[in-house]
Amino acid sequence: MTETAKNIKLVIEYKGTSFCGWQIQKGQPTVQEEITSAIESVTSQRVNVIGAGRTDAGVHALGQTANFMIRHSLEPERYRDALNFYLPDDIRVKSSEEVDEKFHSRFSAVYRRYRYLVGLERSALYREFRYEVERRFDPARLKEAALRVLGEHDFSPFCVVASRQENNFCTIYQSRWYRIGPLLVYEVRGNRFLHSMVRSLVGAMLNLSDEDPDDHPANLTLDSFTDILLTPSGLRIPFTAPPHGLYLVSVGY
Amino acid sequence: MTETAKNIKLVIEYKGTSFCGWQIQKGQPTVQEEITSAIESVTSQRVNVIGAGRTDAGVHALGQTANFMIRHSLEPERYRDALNFYLPDDIRVKSSEEVDEKFHSRFSAVYRRYRYLVGLERSALYREFRYEVERRFDPARLKEAALRVLGEHDFSPFCVVASRQENNFCTIYQSRWYRIGPLLVYEVRGNRFLHSMVRSLVGAMLNLSDEDPDDHPANLTLDSFTDILLTPSGLRIPFTAPPHGLYLVSVGY
Repeated sequence: MTETAKNIKLVIEYKGTSFCGWQIQKGQPTVQEEITSAIESVTSQRVNVIGAGRTDAGVHALGQTANFMIRHSLEPERYRDALNFYLPDDIRVKSSEEVDEKFHSRFSAVYRRYRYLVGLERSALYREFRYEVERRFDPARLKEAALRVLGEHDFSPFCVVASRQENNFCTIYQSRWYRIGPLLVYEVRGNRFLHSMVRSLVGAMLNLSDEDPDDHPANLTLDSFTDILLTPSGLRIPFTAPPHGLYLVSVGY
Repeated sequence: MTETAKNIKLVIEYKGTSFCGWQIQKGQPTVQEEITSAIESVTSQRVNVIGAGRTDAGVHALGQTANFMIRHSLEPERYRDALNFYLPDDIRVKSSEEVDEKFHSRFSAVYRRYRYLVGLERSALYREFRYEVERRFDPARLKEAALRVLGEHDFSPFCVVASRQENNFCTIYQSRWYRIGPLLVYEVRGNRFLHSMVRSLVGAMLNLSDEDPDDHPANLTLDSFTDILLTPSGLRIPFTAPPHGLYLVSVGY
C-alpha cells in the first residue's frame, strides 16, 4: 500500500534544562534529535523535523511548533500519544495534526511569543524555571523601556554577532513587563527574533541605570537604550539574561 | 564571653524530590540533617532542630517551621543568610528570628496548612511538582466530599497503621477543592494531621465513584466516605495520593 505524503504539525512543550537546545548537534542531547528519534521509533523512518524557532540550551518551550513530511498509515492525531510513549518525560507533544503541504513551521509563522521570568527572591522549588535576582527594579522604567521596543527596529545589537544576517529588522507587536507576586514577567511578541534577542533585551532592560553614561560607559540609561534601538551601530549589548528564565510560549500562523 | 541561650525560629522552603523526608534517618539525605549540618557549619555546634511537621519523602514545603536552642553570638536574623550559604539550592531558609524560650515549633502550632496539586494534563516542565492524572473529575462531588471532611473526626482510617496514636482526632478548619487552569488544587487547614493523612484524603476523594459498593467493595462512594469519617473502624483507606503533589504551605502559631 502506497501512502501519500502527509505534512504533520506538532506542538511541543519541553523543559530545556537537560538539553543543548532545539537544534541537532552531533553527540549532544537536543530536542530536535529526541523528536526525530521518537518518529523513527514509531514509523521506522528518519525524517527532517523543522522547528519554528531554535531555542538555545536551557531555554524552555510551552508551544514550540514543528512539522515533518512522511508517508505512513498512522493517523495524524495519533502521533501525539505514539511519540510521547518514546519521548523522555521532559518533552511532551501537546497535539499532532495533518496540515496543508505548503505549511512550514518556520516560514509560515506570522508571530512568535516569548516570556521571560525573573524571580525577585530565591526559590527552593523553581530555580530551574526563572532567573533569580535579589534586587529591586523600578517598574516605571521597565514599563517605559518595554514600550520603546515596540515597532520595527534593526535589532542587530541584541543579536549574537556570528548569527547576524543581512536583514536584522524585526517588528515587535507586544512588549510589556508585569508583576505576579515574587515574579517579574516580560512578554514579547514579534514577527521574528534574532539569536539571543529576547535574552539581550531582558538583560539590557534589567541593567538600565540612572547613572551618567559618561562616567560609566558600560551602563545603559533609558535614553541610550532607545538610541541603540533607533540607530544601531556594530555594538553588541553586553548583557544577556540567562537561558533558564526564557520560554517560547507559542507560534502563530 | 558567655551567651545566654536563644530560641531561634526558622521558616523553611524545600523541594522534597531529592530528600527522604524531613526527619533524620541514618545514611539518608533528609532536610532536618541538612539544616542541622548547616547550623553546625555556621556555629560549630550540633543542636536539636525541631520541625513543626514531619514531611514524607518527596513532599515539598513552602513554609515548614523549625526551632532550635543555641548559645551563640550570631544575631538571630542573620541565621537566614548564614544557613543559606551552606544549604543545598533545594532548601532555602526564608526567615530567622529569636522567639520566646517557650516556643516549640511542633507543640506551639495551632494550625497547619497543606496544599495538594493534581495536574489534569501531562507537563514536560512541572511533573515533579504535581500528581498528574489524565482523567475527568466531577467538581461537584469533590466539593461535597471536601465539605464532609470539615470539623472534628477520628481520622485513623486515613493514617498509616503503624503511626496511629491513642488519640487520632483532628479538627479540620478549612477543606476545599478549586481549579486553576489545568490544575485541581486541594487546600486543607487543621489543628493536626496524622501520618499520610492529607495524601489518603486526596486519594480517597479522587477515587470516589458512583458505582454500587455492594458490587465493587473496594470503591468509595460519597456516602461510604462520609460513613468512614463518622464511624471509623480499623479500616485503612487503600488510596494514597503520591507525595510529589503535596506541599506543607504554612504553620500557624
